[in-house]
Amino acid sequence: MSERKAKPESREDYRARLRTQVMRIARDILHREGLSALQVRRVAEEAGCSVGTLYNIFGDVEGLVLAANAETLVELGEALSTVARRSAAGTLEQRLMALAIAYLDYATINRLRWKAVFEHYVADASLVEANSEHRRRLLALIEGQLTAAIDDPSTRADVARALFAAVHGIVLLALDNKLGSFDASQCEREIRFIVSLAAAKLDPR
Amino acid sequence: MSERKAKPESREDYRARLRTQVMRIARDILHREGLSALQVRRVAEEAGCSVGTLYNIFGDVEGLVLAANAETLVELGEALSTVARRSAAGTLEQRLMALAIAYLDYATINRLRWKAVFEHYVADASLVEANSEHRRRLLALIEGQLTAAIDDPSTRADVARALFAAVHGIVLLALDNKLGSFDASQCEREIRFIVSLAAAKLDPR
Repeated sequence: MSERKAKPESREDYRARLRTQVMRIARDILHREGLSALQVRRVAEEAGCSVGTLYNIFGDVEGLVLAANAETLVELGEALSTVARRSAAGTLEQRLMALAIAYLDYATINRLRWKAVFEHYVADASLVEANSEHRRRLLALIEGQLTAAIDDPSTRADVARALFAAVHGIVLLALDNKLGSFDASQCEREIRFIVSLAAAKLDPR
Repeated sequence: MSERKAKPESREDYRARLRTQVMRIARDILHREGLSALQVRRVAEEAGCSVGTLYNIFGDVEGLVLAANAETLVELGEALSTVARRSAAGTLEQRLMALAIAYLDYATINRLRWKAVFEHYVADASLVEANSEHRRRLLALIEGQLTAAIDDPSTRADVARALFAAVHGIVLLALDNKLGSFDASQCEREIRFIVSLAAAKLDPR
């Protein structure tokens, strides 16, 4: 028996603890089985709470998926930030390439969780905006590499989006075997083709 | 009453007619509701046949989805071929840009059907290969633009894959509002950034 006599848990504490537990369950389901397996009823069962309680915390199933995907985006952002810091002394090509390869690695290791972020179609514009902070942080990482090369912020933003989306497309089609069976070195060559073109144009030394 | 006394339809004719009808139903479901709505039971019901008959024709649900997606790829290939013929006299940048914009247009107009091709994850390597003919035809269209610029066929294939995947990524994230709400002119600027980089490197006049 515990020495401290446990005070009854407050409603707020219960909700916070349940939220943490649910996020862990959701992460695990996304990791093993992907987006289509993330259903409110199943999560409630595994968490030992009612479906109604989950709806109270997350609003609806969209809210649960967005929260789980937000965690993936934060984790991805941390992985890329670490690589950006480590490669900060390199040339533009080296820095962009380091980010792109880190993206490929993250997507390879966390394939289903990473896919869930992009598979989940959000039609509601206000929800698109609600999740925009994580998206902006990812793009800001790329824009940060381009500050010396591109003065105009709006051009810089366009180029960062183009590079992100181009590398995303290469990684996605490769991991999904859409242009043939996955071949990591082929995928890296394709990424390098795009990144080195951009670096040669933007940082012509 | 028809003049010709109808002969009883042969088994082969029935299957061919049913196949055509089922493909039309599948196309319609993909167009309106997307991949997740394409279920064998529903298609059988709309076609007025048994689930077993559908399995006899298509093998399994994978077979039905692959057949429907193959039709989309053929249609997409025809749209791109037409554009390639029409722009054949242009510079490399003009020709690649024409293909990329035609891809964006096709994806915009046929969004759910186009997404179904890429959403449908095929784990089985033999099925990946079975559908590779359509994929090769699309890539061959891009490779065809690059013959004068790149001698080595394997480099040419790499560059074609990289360009296809890069444009695909830009179009996909844009249409899915993944980097903000869809903005066609922004999407075109991103495509132009990638394509013009490649053209400037490969066709430096």
